[in-house]
Amino acid sequence: MKITMAHGSGGRATGELIASTFAKYFNNPILNKMEDSAVVEGSGRLAMTTDSFVVTPLIYPGGDIGRLAICGTVNDLLMSGAVPKYITCGYILEDGADVDLLTQIVKSMAETAAEAGVTIVAGDTKVIEGNGGIYINTAGVGFLPDGINISAANCADGDAIIVSGNLGDHHAAILSTRMEIENEIQSDNAPLVEIVRALKEAKVELHAMRDVTRGGLATVLHEFAVSSGSCMELWEEKLPVHPAVQGFCNLLGLDPLYMGNEGKMLTVVPKHDAETALQAIRGSKYGEHAAIIGEVTHTENGNVLVHTKVGGVRTVSELIGEGLPRIC
Amino acid sequence: MKITMAHGSGGRATGELIASTFAKYFNNPILNKMEDSAVVEGSGRLAMTTDSFVVTPLIYPGGDIGRLAICGTVNDLLMSGAVPKYITCGYILEDGADVDLLTQIVKSMAETAAEAGVTIVAGDTKVIEGNGGIYINTAGVGFLPDGINISAANCADGDAIIVSGNLGDHHAAILSTRMEIENEIQSDNAPLVEIVRALKEAKVELHAMRDVTRGGLATVLHEFAVSSGSCMELWEEKLPVHPAVQGFCNLLGLDPLYMGNEGKMLTVVPKHDAETALQAIRGSKYGEHAAIIGEVTHTENGNVLVHTKVGGVRTVSELIGEGLPRIC
Repeated sequence: MKITMAHGSGGRATGELIASTFAKYFNNPILNKMEDSAVVEGSGRLAMTTDSFVVTPLIYPGGDIGRLAICGTVNDLLMSGAVPKYITCGYILEDGADVDLLTQIVKSMAETAAEAGVTIVAGDTKVIEGNGGIYINTAGVGFLPDGINISAANCADGDAIIVSGNLGDHHAAILSTRMEIENEIQSDNAPLVEIVRALKEAKVELHAMRDVTRGGLATVLHEFAVSSGSCMELWEEKLPVHPAVQGFCNLLGLDPLYMGNEGKMLTVVPKHDAETALQAIRGSKYGEHAAIIGEVTHTENGNVLVHTKVGGVRTVSELIGEGLPRIC
Repeated sequence: MKITMAHGSGGRATGELIASTFAKYFNNPILNKMEDSAVVEGSGRLAMTTDSFVVTPLIYPGGDIGRLAICGTVNDLLMSGAVPKYITCGYILEDGADVDLLTQIVKSMAETAAEAGVTIVAGDTKVIEGNGGIYINTAGVGFLPDGINISAANCADGDAIIVSGNLGDHHAAILSTRMEIENEIQSDNAPLVEIVRALKEAKVELHAMRDVTRGGLATVLHEFAVSSGSCMELWEEKLPVHPAVQGFCNLLGLDPLYMGNEGKMLTVVPKHDAETALQAIRGSKYGEHAAIIGEVTHTENGNVLVHTKVGGVRTVSELIGEGLPRIC
């Protein structure tokens, strides 16, 4: 079955679509009330975020737009130190979208939400003219425990910079699929719930955290350098990159530092906590390839420097231009 | 300036776009922190909702997609009995979208948010191929006072059905613009904050509330009839319709009962509270044309009946098919 403009009417066709897809897989007592707003329990400080997902292709090695839409918002909440709790989903469907494909994506969202421990509490569907495209917005609410203060501005001299795993996997998987290159590269899209929980349980002093998405590690480090008025110094030989991704990058002249992930995060912690943090991440699901990749200094405030394998130092410039469009 | 794919990169072009549009007009201490999640104060029960907006044209008599995107989510939160507090915004921009137009829309969102008393706390921007279209998702969080229990299921025998004003204005304004018909019809898109506040202050026992959007009053009443297992009986001569909208409907053979509004709501209250509720709404901004239009009965449970001006009774069927696409 294909989506038609009638599915966007708000009348019977919309109701039938919702019943056979969203309500079926997102089935929970809060959503099932079908009121215009979901009522949930809350208390204390809240974290809120939103993200729209326009990735193409909709399904790719290692994931799909649905898994991505849950992980993206869950990970953004986690990075504030919050425990993600509730997710809303807004679908913009193009005329001609395949309902079986939509159903597969919705099922994937339900599974990823269960893995991440969040509940999908509200949704909306609109239909526009087009060629069968599917766009998804998710917004999320998490609860922030007292005493947590994580911010890019907290990066301090001597802090260790830790990345939770291999760089560029998602970007390389999307690009490989679009170019129809056969390889073993899989997207890393995953919720980082376990990693963050392990870091908190290890009582690590978390100065800053950020998930590595479009724009890559370079973009995150630039934001950290500017926000904290310090310098981010990396050691090139420490950067974890899967051999297949490195080979792909060499072939196409790409730099893993600018390539997007969807299941990796950067953590900045005091030097004395660095080894504890590294072990906490490595012991968690999706964290096995974590590495300490650099240090916060004042060598060149506001900039990102890399000590190259051949002994030089280069400045990592901010991403200018388009990178790879529609990666997330 | 036109939007290009580079504005979706997450790098410098994205940053410059955000600084010159969203950050400029949504300027507030929570958003300005520019972390991936906004941290806000919360307590007790929360209401959450989401809506995507794909209306065309983007600007129309009486409003624009930005005002609509704020009102839609604010009104959904209000209908649960919550006080709307925080809004997130996700933008999907098509290649070629006009930045001046986007800026005008963003400014309108800021003004409408101020009018509605909500704070925009998080945002996201993606760029896709296309023809300059702009799509906006908003999600919202509100705080729900204790003791509030508003639900379509609460509609009870003898309850009065009250609509807060003229039907079909938004739908007729959009359709007139698309058909290039010159008339005085203006969209009613507005936040219903004052009306709901007045109803609460008047201590009216609110059984059910719902804003009247796509699908029109008929769609809302159908949901109420089904949820509560009762019959919604209307008096045609009581239905408030602006003369210009009625004329437009007569010309095109449209029924105001199926036409969408974006600043009207339906309230169901016990008969003894009906007059108090009516006066509370009429005394509020955007409520001056409110009317008691019908009663909850058990004449034909699960159905909506209209007593026509000529003395007959007709069943109002559920909306089937597309209605008017891209009205919101």
